[in-house]
Amino acid sequence: MAIALEAAEAAGKRGEVPIGAVVVRDGIVLASAGNRTRELFDPTAHAEILALREACATEGSERLPGAHLYVTLEPCAMCAAAIAFARIERLYYGAADPKGGGVDHGGRFFDQPTCHHRPEVYSGFSETRAATLLRQFFEERR
Amino acid sequence: MAIALEAAEAAGKRGEVPIGAVVVRDGIVLASAGNRTRELFDPTAHAEILALREACATEGSERLPGAHLYVTLEPCAMCAAAIAFARIERLYYGAADPKGGGVDHGGRFFDQPTCHHRPEVYSGFSETRAATLLRQFFEERR
Repeated sequence: MAIALEAAEAAGKRGEVPIGAVVVRDGIVLASAGNRTRELFDPTAHAEILALREACATEGSERLPGAHLYVTLEPCAMCAAAIAFARIERLYYGAADPKGGGVDHGGRFFDQPTCHHRPEVYSGFSETRAATLLRQFFEERR
Repeated sequence: MAIALEAAEAAGKRGEVPIGAVVVRDGIVLASAGNRTRELFDPTAHAEILALREACATEGSERLPGAHLYVTLEPCAMCAAAIAFARIERLYYGAADPKGGGVDHGGRFFDQPTCHHRPEVYSGFSETRAATLLRQFFEERR
C-alpha cells in the first residue's frame, strides 16, 4: 500500500485525482499506476485500470490469477468489474468511497450474479492517509 | 448499429467475442471498435471501452457530451460506468445480456446513487442479428 500511496501522491502533483494502485504477485510488483484521466484524455484511465492493463501486458495474459491489487480508494463499478475480469485473487483498498464506490457501495459488483469472479476483499488499509490526500487535493482546488 | 454489427463480425473473425461499438456525434462517427481482449492481452479491451477511448483521444477530452454510443450487446458494469464517466448522452444497445449485463441486469449501474450521469438508454436494436453472431461464435468453439 506504501507504493500505491506514492503513486497517488504523484498523481496529485500532476493535477490528477490522487489515487494509486499496484498489482503484486508472489511479492513482485507487476505494475503500479496513478490516475491519468486528464493527461490522457481518457475517462477509463483510473489507477486500477492502468495498473491492470500494464500487468496484463507484461504477463502476456488477460488474466492474472494469484495476483493481488492494492488501491488507495474503494474501486468504482468500472474498476471492480475489470478486477473481476482480470481474475485478481485479493483486493486491498484504503478509504471507502460512499459517493462513487462499486465494491461496498452502489451496485456492489462482486455481490451480483453477473459477476463471475469474486476476489477476497480487505479494506481500511492506510485509509486516513489515502483519504487525507484526496481531501487536501479537493480543498486546494476550491 | 450497422457499423457496430460490422465491427462485431470483424471481431469474431479475429477470434474475439463478436461485440462491436460505435461512438457518434452530430451524425459523424468518432470511433468504432470490436472486442480485442485476447489480441491485446487486456481484460478491459471491450468494444465500448476501445471506442470511447479512441473518441476521447480524437476529441482531446475525457468527456463526450452530446455523443451517442451504439453497441451490439448490453454493456457490462465496467462499460456502463465508463459510458457515464464519458458523459455519453444516449446509449443504444442490441441484445440483452442477463448473464453479464450491467445496465438492465446485475448492479444496474445507471440506477445507482453512485452513478453521476445517466444516459438515455434504448435497447433491442438489431438484437436478433447481434445475438445470432454471439450464439454462432460460441457454438463453433464448442
